[in-house]
Amino acid sequence: MSGPVVVITGGVGGAKLVEGLTHAIPHEQLTAIVNTGDDFEHLGLPISPDIDTLLYTLSGRANASQGWGREGESWSFMEVVRSLGGEDWFNLGDGDLALHVLRGAALRAGQPLSAIIRRFALNWNLGLTILPMSDDPVATWIESDQGALPFQRYFVEHRCTPRVSAIRFVGAESASPAPGVIAAIEAAQTILIAPSNPWLSVDPLLALPALRVALERRNGPLVAVSPLVAGTAVKGPTAKLMQELGLPVNNASIAAHYGSLLDGLVIHESDDAPEGLAIARTNTLMQTPQDKLRVAQAALDLARQCAG
Amino acid sequence: MSGPVVVITGGVGGAKLVEGLTHAIPHEQLTAIVNTGDDFEHLGLPISPDIDTLLYTLSGRANASQGWGREGESWSFMEVVRSLGGEDWFNLGDGDLALHVLRGAALRAGQPLSAIIRRFALNWNLGLTILPMSDDPVATWIESDQGALPFQRYFVEHRCTPRVSAIRFVGAESASPAPGVIAAIEAAQTILIAPSNPWLSVDPLLALPALRVALERRNGPLVAVSPLVAGTAVKGPTAKLMQELGLPVNNASIAAHYGSLLDGLVIHESDDAPEGLAIARTNTLMQTPQDKLRVAQAALDLARQCAG
Repeated sequence: MSGPVVVITGGVGGAKLVEGLTHAIPHEQLTAIVNTGDDFEHLGLPISPDIDTLLYTLSGRANASQGWGREGESWSFMEVVRSLGGEDWFNLGDGDLALHVLRGAALRAGQPLSAIIRRFALNWNLGLTILPMSDDPVATWIESDQGALPFQRYFVEHRCTPRVSAIRFVGAESASPAPGVIAAIEAAQTILIAPSNPWLSVDPLLALPALRVALERRNGPLVAVSPLVAGTAVKGPTAKLMQELGLPVNNASIAAHYGSLLDGLVIHESDDAPEGLAIARTNTLMQTPQDKLRVAQAALDLARQCAG
Repeated sequence: MSGPVVVITGGVGGAKLVEGLTHAIPHEQLTAIVNTGDDFEHLGLPISPDIDTLLYTLSGRANASQGWGREGESWSFMEVVRSLGGEDWFNLGDGDLALHVLRGAALRAGQPLSAIIRRFALNWNLGLTILPMSDDPVATWIESDQGALPFQRYFVEHRCTPRVSAIRFVGAESASPAPGVIAAIEAAQTILIAPSNPWLSVDPLLALPALRVALERRNGPLVAVSPLVAGTAVKGPTAKLMQELGLPVNNASIAAHYGSLLDGLVIHESDDAPEGLAIARTNTLMQTPQDKLRVAQAALDLARQCAG
């Protein structure tokens, strides 16, 4: 058995690995620590894109073809917002609003984000533990040829077209990991990093000093799943971003990025293998439930091998 | 011509008269001053039921058969709220949420309610002026055999079943009329009180000291349309409430309630006529656009007669 497993994750790609893990190990052994650097306030509502993607994916509510939001969503809200001259660059589905409105009301009532997400997960009968990386605000900012942009402006409004020169995580230095985060890492026999964007979705977590230190002091192996599939990114700006940051788009760059944190790397079967690191190869493209389970199993197997 | 007209109104019944008025006089001559005593915060969103009913009615978006909310509304939000264990005693439609979310964001950004409503009305091309009675919070509380209840708890959650002993307007004493309210009353050649519930929907406005004084000092006649049709209320708790307050359910009670403010009263054709007051009779049941225009015209004619 793998014992307690912690997975560090962003949104879409990461949620697929987490879904695979829920079929590979008992739910109560699994803790997902989730990026909140993408979180922002829109129309006065607090949005947590990566956490919500996880909630939708694990409850079977995700819109898989779209890559974000709810399956079977309706859009009356946006239609009326437009008629009232409201901002419409970020789409909020009718049912999706429930997460944001309830989160907003609870935050304003003084509840921490981690407690709110725990209640959401309980109501949707998700057996694993989902923890925001922090209850404190951390905001990912993109330095680009179009100036400094908050993450969602870069990602959604500008569709990742600006050329990125640097990425900052405002508030990370002074943010504390959410209750349970450090304890979960300390208890973990295996730590995984999901195939989320290392620079945009994983770095915000590594930018929290206490979280980084806990990872460095970990008890078991740390294995990442590379976000590259057949030499490029499945979705999202990973490959483009790596080029803009002057990095070769290959697994050596991914391994170098995580550096000494990394004990092993799961890579796509046809891709380059960096040296000095335990490697597992599988088809890392996750489309079906079987794909997700296979990649999760490959990561757990590699971790066991590293521990052995 | 009637000159500038001010109509003091609550929600459903009042909105029908206002709609009739928009067909009887030029839009730019018409100002509706609207009850905000029913306003409350739900799931962290500021709800203004009477103002929103007016916005929906005048823009042709109201659900007439239901008596509240939008025509063709969808309900994904409430469904997800229920799945998350959120409060579901007050229904918020998907499209309806746009008003509440945009209002909430603007209020938190420091904009006054009156400015927000003006912008909503402009976006929906409503030519008349719609003013909340106040930008300050005023809350209608119901003293009942089930204790003190905020208005919406009494009205929606308890469906008006508690027996009412008194009604309070918390904050009214110190609330200022919204910008434009006093000026509109001073400029009005005719002031109408819509057939809204006098105790629940009109009294909150009369409880604002400056608004009441302005009405007492008015230049033209003040005519009310009785909420009673064929000796009872069309909808809502008016008749039940009058009984609980120990009042005969008739137009003499309505006239006595408004007292010296009133110059004339439009009553239903078959109903009792109180003495000492100019009276117009018509069928005051407003179902069709023609009904609404007829009642509006009757009120304007009676006012002209009072002025003459």
